[in-house]
Amino acid sequence: MAGDKRTRGQVLKYIIGVDLGGTKIHTIAINYDGKILSRIELPTCPERGTDFVIRQIVKSVNHVSKRICKSEIAGLGIGTPGAINSKKGIVHFAPNLHWRNVSLKKRLEKYFSFPIFVDNDANLAAYGEQWLGSAKNVKNLIYVAMGTGVGGGLIFDGKIYRGVDDTAGEIGHVTVVPEGLPCGCGNRGCLETYSSGPGIANLAKDKIRKGYPSIIPKMVNNRLEKITSLVVYQAAKRKDKLALEIFRTAGTYLGIILAGLVNLLNVEMIIFTGKVAKAGNLIFNSVRKEIKQRALAVPAKRVRVVCGVLGQDAVALGACRLVKENV
Amino acid sequence: MAGDKRTRGQVLKYIIGVDLGGTKIHTIAINYDGKILSRIELPTCPERGTDFVIRQIVKSVNHVSKRICKSEIAGLGIGTPGAINSKKGIVHFAPNLHWRNVSLKKRLEKYFSFPIFVDNDANLAAYGEQWLGSAKNVKNLIYVAMGTGVGGGLIFDGKIYRGVDDTAGEIGHVTVVPEGLPCGCGNRGCLETYSSGPGIANLAKDKIRKGYPSIIPKMVNNRLEKITSLVVYQAAKRKDKLALEIFRTAGTYLGIILAGLVNLLNVEMIIFTGKVAKAGNLIFNSVRKEIKQRALAVPAKRVRVVCGVLGQDAVALGACRLVKENV
Repeated sequence: MAGDKRTRGQVLKYIIGVDLGGTKIHTIAINYDGKILSRIELPTCPERGTDFVIRQIVKSVNHVSKRICKSEIAGLGIGTPGAINSKKGIVHFAPNLHWRNVSLKKRLEKYFSFPIFVDNDANLAAYGEQWLGSAKNVKNLIYVAMGTGVGGGLIFDGKIYRGVDDTAGEIGHVTVVPEGLPCGCGNRGCLETYSSGPGIANLAKDKIRKGYPSIIPKMVNNRLEKITSLVVYQAAKRKDKLALEIFRTAGTYLGIILAGLVNLLNVEMIIFTGKVAKAGNLIFNSVRKEIKQRALAVPAKRVRVVCGVLGQDAVALGACRLVKENV
Repeated sequence: MAGDKRTRGQVLKYIIGVDLGGTKIHTIAINYDGKILSRIELPTCPERGTDFVIRQIVKSVNHVSKRICKSEIAGLGIGTPGAINSKKGIVHFAPNLHWRNVSLKKRLEKYFSFPIFVDNDANLAAYGEQWLGSAKNVKNLIYVAMGTGVGGGLIFDGKIYRGVDDTAGEIGHVTVVPEGLPCGCGNRGCLETYSSGPGIANLAKDKIRKGYPSIIPKMVNNRLEKITSLVVYQAAKRKDKLALEIFRTAGTYLGIILAGLVNLLNVEMIIFTGKVAKAGNLIFNSVRKEIKQRALAVPAKRVRVVCGVLGQDAVALGACRLVKENV
């Protein structure tokens, strides 16, 4: 194939990428052009312990590579949540996996002879989108993953920006309301407290308890604890005024932070992904409005606010790219 | 000398750096090791027109290089305020210079045969501090210049980060109070509105008008329009409670933004310079407190908050380094 890599007489044709999540392990095998040849999804079951999770990863890699000659595999890339050391391939702290200081790279090296690379999942999703997704030819971007939390990845001058301890990208813990709601991280008023899925659900619960009229209570049989961002979304789709206002609020907070970052970082693109991003323009119209109103003319005009297109493959494709660039 | 550069039989021994400000032009000649051999300061007088300013730059360069063999000059670097195109060496908009779309590089090339490089002054000051100042061996840093405005420069992975249109670094126009005071940029609640020199003076005026007790009115003979950040500083030095509180407020706003950026960018260092930074711990204690309280443990522990040490030479030294790295 056009993209194959030749090293020391060997032809490297394939790359394996793993998206290690708290719920599932999503693994793909690709060729050097980024074409996905096979994929599998296995449950992570972190409650069954680290050994089990490692075995699940190995199983998934063996599955996607079973029709591939092992000597033609360039390497394995893994995207993991949490605080990591990307050089050493150690996962320092990943609450979703119940992991502390797991030497992921070393443990997997016992099973495979090809090189193994580990990086943060949001970084790799950004890297994947830049390779094959919505950010082709874009050199500077902010990637925002909106789900249970608000995570982020940064690409500056074409490369993943990790910071000095690999912790860069924590956009969810940028303060947007200095004396705002307490956040799990210990701070107050973090963006995540307002613009994540639970944040949106909490905004709704709060307003409903304060007596704002809405169809939401009826949708959850008055059991307000059942309100999720999905319920709020469904209410918004039915033109419920409160639900629409809540998405506008979440988008406004997000937009205030991003307008500041547009001024500071002059990026070409902001990419949204994650369950909450599926609300689309219910949120993003407010984001665009804040950027237009608050950011300086040149960087505001430059930046494009878009949704990611690689879906569940983004992290694994970014992981493959990490191998491609480093082997 | 150890650091000399040899190219095509030529020995390049010297570099010229210019800090082009709205009030003065500060020009230095250095050797390849960064030692300053001569310097001069000339008035800019932008009101006398672009031609005059260009001639002043030329005059200053000729002055610092008069004892240097011209063929041994590697190049000329210039730091300018405003919005620029660093590749083309064009100053698009610099209100302090009354400039719009001035082809600075091209115009200076008529006078000199060595290569000329142009960049934003805050970028170059950051670059200078990283080469010879407080940030040696630091690869990721945020540089904050606190004066009439709040400007910034970013070094990521050892390199100047400019963004896609060379506008990155505008930390003064990051929103800190969403519905706050109007800013000259058109936004509301920009950091600059609270933590710049005029911002600090305005905070004082506002509190005094509201009747807060302070020695400040007496210091300016009750002419409140005479209040500057320097007056507030002098009052703070005399333990005036209001003045101390105002510096705490300015530092708190600055700290809220920087705590967010510590989470997002995981930088090793934040460097402060400028007239307002001379207030030192009156401001920076609040900055450190906010970072400690608001940022995540790993990046908060990592980051050092310091003052720049190169003073008025920072921009010109950074300009010299730009030449050194590009010739």
